[in-house]
Amino acid sequence: MARKILYNGIIITSNSNDEVISNGAIGIEGEKIIYVGITHDDLTTYDENVDLKGNILLPGLVNTHGHTPMSLLRGYADDLHLQTWLEDKIWPLEAKYTPEHARWGTKLSILEMIRTGTTTFVDMYDNMDEVARAVEEAGIRGVLCRGVIGFGSEELRQNKLKEAAAFADIWNNRANGRITTMLSPHSPYTCSPEYISQIIEKSAELNVPLHTHMSETRFEVEKNIEEYGATPVRHLDKLGFFDRPALVAHAVHVNDEDIDILAEKSVKVSHNIVSNLKLGSGIAPVAKMLAKGVTVSLGTDSVASNNNLDLFEEIKAVATIHKGVAQDATVITAVEALRMATINGAESLWLENRIGSLEVGKDADFIVVDANQSFFYPKNNPVSHLVYSGSGRDVKDVYVQGKQILANGQSTTMDEEKVLFEANRMSKLLNDEQ
Amino acid sequence: MARKILYNGIIITSNSNDEVISNGAIGIEGEKIIYVGITHDDLTTYDENVDLKGNILLPGLVNTHGHTPMSLLRGYADDLHLQTWLEDKIWPLEAKYTPEHARWGTKLSILEMIRTGTTTFVDMYDNMDEVARAVEEAGIRGVLCRGVIGFGSEELRQNKLKEAAAFADIWNNRANGRITTMLSPHSPYTCSPEYISQIIEKSAELNVPLHTHMSETRFEVEKNIEEYGATPVRHLDKLGFFDRPALVAHAVHVNDEDIDILAEKSVKVSHNIVSNLKLGSGIAPVAKMLAKGVTVSLGTDSVASNNNLDLFEEIKAVATIHKGVAQDATVITAVEALRMATINGAESLWLENRIGSLEVGKDADFIVVDANQSFFYPKNNPVSHLVYSGSGRDVKDVYVQGKQILANGQSTTMDEEKVLFEANRMSKLLNDEQ
Ligand SMILES: [Zn+2]
Ligand SMILES: [Zn+2]
Repeated sequence: MARKILYNGIIITSNSNDEVISNGAIGIEGEKIIYVGITHDDLTTYDENVDLKGNILLPGLVNTHGHTPMSLLRGYADDLHLQTWLEDKIWPLEAKYTPEHARWGTKLSILEMIRTGTTTFVDMYDNMDEVARAVEEAGIRGVLCRGVIGFGSEELRQNKLKEAAAFADIWNNRANGRITTMLSPHSPYTCSPEYISQIIEKSAELNVPLHTHMSETRFEVEKNIEEYGATPVRHLDKLGFFDRPALVAHAVHVNDEDIDILAEKSVKVSHNIVSNLKLGSGIAPVAKMLAKGVTVSLGTDSVASNNNLDLFEEIKAVATIHKGVAQDATVITAVEALRMATINGAESLWLENRIGSLEVGKDADFIVVDANQSFFYPKNNPVSHLVYSGSGRDVKDVYVQGKQILANGQSTTMDEEKVLFEANRMSKLLNDEQ
Repeated sequence: MARKILYNGIIITSNSNDEVISNGAIGIEGEKIIYVGITHDDLTTYDENVDLKGNILLPGLVNTHGHTPMSLLRGYADDLHLQTWLEDKIWPLEAKYTPEHARWGTKLSILEMIRTGTTTFVDMYDNMDEVARAVEEAGIRGVLCRGVIGFGSEELRQNKLKEAAAFADIWNNRANGRITTMLSPHSPYTCSPEYISQIIEKSAELNVPLHTHMSETRFEVEKNIEEYGATPVRHLDKLGFFDRPALVAHAVHVNDEDIDILAEKSVKVSHNIVSNLKLGSGIAPVAKMLAKGVTVSLGTDSVASNNNLDLFEEIKAVATIHKGVAQDATVITAVEALRMATINGAESLWLENRIGSLEVGKDADFIVVDANQSFFYPKNNPVSHLVYSGSGRDVKDVYVQGKQILANGQSTTMDEEKVLFEANRMSKLLNDEQ
């Protein structure tokens, strides 16, 4: 297998010591990392040498919640109350989605994620075969689930569950292991307890984790208490949801008892700070969750509520906003914020043995940031610069499983011009038919 | 004078109707805008035609608070309590600044501002001759003041005031009118009432506005009440500060009565949201200030507390964070957020007759954003895309007074490589001498 070394860079490892290596190098053989350390002399033992020219190399970012096909809806509806936004704008358009809409929406999203340094993403939507095929082609890594909403007839519900299970079964560990799958009831407010129980059972049968939206808005929590006599966390816990590996998105409105349950049951939380702000949902008590030992990672949610997939924006947001809210500048340091987007992301997807940090034996998923720009000067503190001054736009090169999928800002696996053109065309079709 | 037309773009005017022109054009003659409208046929009457290729053209952004020489301190101290940050980290380093440090810090800042679409900035620091000369050379627009701190002997204080007044007098309307000046006591907690009164008097004499830091932290407000029996707003008002044209930075901890005073006295507020978050100072009640008619614009504050000068980040922050805090997605729309960075910025500097919107007769200060990227697709809502999905990194071209100072992402007036090198060198010198 071909051996390649990238040298003369600043290597941010996200390993358990948060090691940063100046004048560092990373060696890869096929899909795997075989060396992480200072730039040494035996460059000649490698088939290929790449001079990083002092740029910053770090683990590929992990986006733990989103809905990639929704990119067609970017900018279509902003500054509206959540219910108006969903019911009057988003749902009517989504109802008109065909597999072709999903395909080009997803490709637009994947293009943007790769361009901004995300190498692994979670997706919950329908037409998931389109998403899986796009992941396969683009060379990115996806943790995918067909999200199910429990509205309509019993037959419809059972068909959806069957579809979700079939998808999870067929695609798990496909695309050379780059795709893994989950099962996903959309939320406790769109799925009955019985339906959620069936999904939990199926997840055990297929041996895949669970994913859901939870406690995003105050209204939703109040309704859950009214209807089931419990917060969404307690409700899901009683149903046995947390006895399976589970990733929940949002957890904005959670109380101390809720957080204790999340910690005790090792529930993974995807913090979607920008989307939660933009939709006026509120600000999750992340510092408290972290203090209690909950694994918190970062998600963008969809482009319809963000409105982009540049995870660097969530990293800066998480490192600044919680300080402002707590009126305490020591809350969530730059190092912690970066970990949330790297190793915490990997742990949230049960992939920490393969990705999330740069260590020998892990898959070669990493990104290179162009540090030869004002944002990274003076050259004193690369982690601070990445977190507080960097942008996904600064990413130049992206590798997944040892394969380069972004080279000097250009996708090597996707036809960018075509993706932009088709996404625009499909979006226009959606809107024109209104 | 040479006449030039840029055509086939999306023109965001920030005029009083917030007009956006598809297939738009802007014509300039020398320093001035002579046409804003749809692309018409008489391109031949211009000496030069530039095809915008569907890109977005908008007014140059206005950054209403900062300290450009401090860029040398980027990444030097993060995640610390404000007092520790200032007293243990920032002040000791600032004490070692020479004019040469100020020069290269300022050039690093100006380079970054131009690169990210800022065409006018406010600066409050010392060694202001260096800043003014850098503005003159770089072709950007600056509203500059020598900030004075009232510590030390009476002689020292009077010398500083003399220096500040001389600077304001000499540099006002220089650099072809691109430089205007103000007088600036650093803050009510670093300047005695008597000293502030002298500065107010001098500002009337020189006919320049006033600028100061105000009500940034809860601690500062409490101390002001303890010492002077009034909030900083009321205290400054009693001293007559607001009887002069006045721009205040921060206004984080202001009560209803304070806001009424700011509105009644037409005080301009520079909202520095990212810096306020990162330093743990809190979140200014901007929605309330806007509702009461206060002119609120956006500032980055210095790179030491931001940590960059990309005003697009403040625009997105202001349009999302206030929604999240209020748990109301209708608070501060995309259009309002963009106005805060354009025409509100101009009004905050009493320059609204010259800049801040694209209208015939105004100076030709504008920027072009590369919209041929995923972040701006689908092509449905350019203002939303700029505010929620855009980045200063997307800026390609920058014009000030009709002169192009950024061309395809490259500075036309500064030697970028040299600025990065020298800023790094000067920063290292500061730190090594510790
Ligand atoms: Zn979601
Ligand atoms: Zn300041």
